[in-house]
Amino acid sequence: MTDLDALDRDDPLAAFPERFDLPSGVVYLDGNSLGPLPRATRPAVDALLAGAWGRDLIASWEGNGWMAAPLRVGEAIGRLIGAETGSVIAGDSTSINLFKALAAALALRPGRTEIAVVADDFPTDHYIAGGIAGLLGRGHRLRAGAPGPETAVVLAGHVDFRTGRMRPMVALTAEAHAVGALAVWDLSHSTGAVPLALAAAGADFAVGCGYKFLNGGPGAPGYLYVAPRHQGVVPALAGWMGHAAPFAFASGYAPAQGIARFGVGTPPILGLAALEVGVGLALAADMAALREKSLRMSTIFMEGAAALGGFGCLTPADPDARGSQVCLTHPEAAAIMGRLAALGVVGDFRPPDILRFGITPLTLRYRDIGRALACLAQARGE
Amino acid sequence: MTDLDALDRDDPLAAFPERFDLPSGVVYLDGNSLGPLPRATRPAVDALLAGAWGRDLIASWEGNGWMAAPLRVGEAIGRLIGAETGSVIAGDSTSINLFKALAAALALRPGRTEIAVVADDFPTDHYIAGGIAGLLGRGHRLRAGAPGPETAVVLAGHVDFRTGRMRPMVALTAEAHAVGALAVWDLSHSTGAVPLALAAAGADFAVGCGYKFLNGGPGAPGYLYVAPRHQGVVPALAGWMGHAAPFAFASGYAPAQGIARFGVGTPPILGLAALEVGVGLALAADMAALREKSLRMSTIFMEGAAALGGFGCLTPADPDARGSQVCLTHPEAAAIMGRLAALGVVGDFRPPDILRFGITPLTLRYRDIGRALACLAQARGE
Repeated sequence: MTDLDALDRDDPLAAFPERFDLPSGVVYLDGNSLGPLPRATRPAVDALLAGAWGRDLIASWEGNGWMAAPLRVGEAIGRLIGAETGSVIAGDSTSINLFKALAAALALRPGRTEIAVVADDFPTDHYIAGGIAGLLGRGHRLRAGAPGPETAVVLAGHVDFRTGRMRPMVALTAEAHAVGALAVWDLSHSTGAVPLALAAAGADFAVGCGYKFLNGGPGAPGYLYVAPRHQGVVPALAGWMGHAAPFAFASGYAPAQGIARFGVGTPPILGLAALEVGVGLALAADMAALREKSLRMSTIFMEGAAALGGFGCLTPADPDARGSQVCLTHPEAAAIMGRLAALGVVGDFRPPDILRFGITPLTLRYRDIGRALACLAQARGE
Repeated sequence: MTDLDALDRDDPLAAFPERFDLPSGVVYLDGNSLGPLPRATRPAVDALLAGAWGRDLIASWEGNGWMAAPLRVGEAIGRLIGAETGSVIAGDSTSINLFKALAAALALRPGRTEIAVVADDFPTDHYIAGGIAGLLGRGHRLRAGAPGPETAVVLAGHVDFRTGRMRPMVALTAEAHAVGALAVWDLSHSTGAVPLALAAAGADFAVGCGYKFLNGGPGAPGYLYVAPRHQGVVPALAGWMGHAAPFAFASGYAPAQGIARFGVGTPPILGLAALEVGVGLALAADMAALREKSLRMSTIFMEGAAALGGFGCLTPADPDARGSQVCLTHPEAAAIMGRLAALGVVGDFRPPDILRFGITPLTLRYRDIGRALACLAQARGE
């Protein structure tokens, strides 16, 4: 057995778990569903409430940086995902951001009607895509499989939510471009978890989630990435916060320059304040060290589960095809997850038979993985 | 001069201003733009962070009522606006909610292409309407003026943001219905400020803002009202939170029954927690008393400003046509508003020449109105 205490001693990210406020006695392997509370979040949010809102009131839109928050937090996320400067805006839910991305991509490919999707991808992505296809209603449709001459846009989750498999962004983006289509990536399960290089990959659009590996809090705002070459498109969700001069209250819509035009309503300041703390923690960590710790942890967990016997594993053994979660299968998955929870190990059950464990290197120690494996042995044996 | 101290002594809502945390020495007449901080908000949000998020983590979605929050807060707002049970959902920005309402209304009137709007209404409403017209792109267009045979939907702000004029909801809704159109109301400047009876008025859809008279905090979630008879429409923004079984992760979209189907992404829990405090305060007040105090305050303010001379007034003298704000005009409006701010009186300048003062009876005392008038005299005279 690997010496987990030694790994913890040598861990260059060892200081990070101390920066989160986790209940004692709990091994939290659900940070890919809801990241835990950073210790800095409570004081940051309270300062926002008492100071910026309570004392400075309306003046905070300029004086305390509220107006700038969507682009400021977006810029920080952009550094995490290898985006060009000025190509990310934070705010709205991931689903709404996906709608914006798909509407823009379809507008850029007016002669094409097909949205190519990955079968079994995160369902809400397909619901949103189906919704916009229905709204456009000019023969627009979803089709699972490789893009073709009718394909306007390829929509794919980067890390599969059920299996933890990471799809090859460079290759799939190139495949889309080869047939004249655009690529929209859902980075919900990879932002803050794996190295990303959107600009280098040639991605066209991307969206991601603030409350998973970014630890931004329940229902945190999501984000939208638009490659600079596409930022001239007129947004379908045309709101005043994307207007060139929102406080001129002009009757005609004139979109702002750059990524700012993808703002819609008044930004969710409380959610953005909490998200900013989480993004800051992720940025403070070295991404290469984070990836190395993630893969080492998931390998230990997968090998340990295999040694127990009785579990299938949906997560690829190949590290290059692995995100930052481990998905086991077991006929009694739901019952085992319940017993694990009683032992203080929190993961997710996903129907029909999946035990999903988030590997969040910022918030976990190697010895947590050891304890999770010991509890898994116990939970299976009962 | 009215005895303002006597009015304060007799005010049935006198306890409410104590429940807000306003900076000392400030008369805040901008609660129609950003409502002030309720004293109960900081502890409520901190309990959410430390307890629900920090300690209970993912279990809070069920155990601490996070999943139910959009409908729970929506139901509370529904009581404020005279809506049927189960017809309001909170979440997303007002602009996004307006998009949902317009998309649904247009889907219910498939043969019609016109969105009738009010000239000079809140610009973002027109931007959003223009965006959806462009997205549909089958001859859809906006037209200012009375509805006609091509009109699918009439979109109107209930209280005009520039003038404080309140439009007659019953009459305008009936006018829309008379030509077979649907009525969509923007209640941003009336929710929590004036009595509303959506069900009785026969309104079809409505949206409103959480951070103005509801005191929900900067960028608070907005809300959407859908009359029960229209809740069968398939949402254009089809997200997993509107799915009949979001955690089944089914590949096909099957909308939930009732208002729940208008949920989209993961609800913004921090924002909803702060909004819930504000809505609770508004519900605790007697709406008839609130309206009476509002009208008495705005009358005192309008008469006082008229006595000063030099100001025009855009706000109707007729109380039945008045919302809960007073809009004065002056050639030097911007400079006067700046001097008022230096004297501790906070209002809004709106181009080109409007001084806008929010009358928020929950957070103001009559003597605040007296002080504002005294400062207005001073600011004008300099």
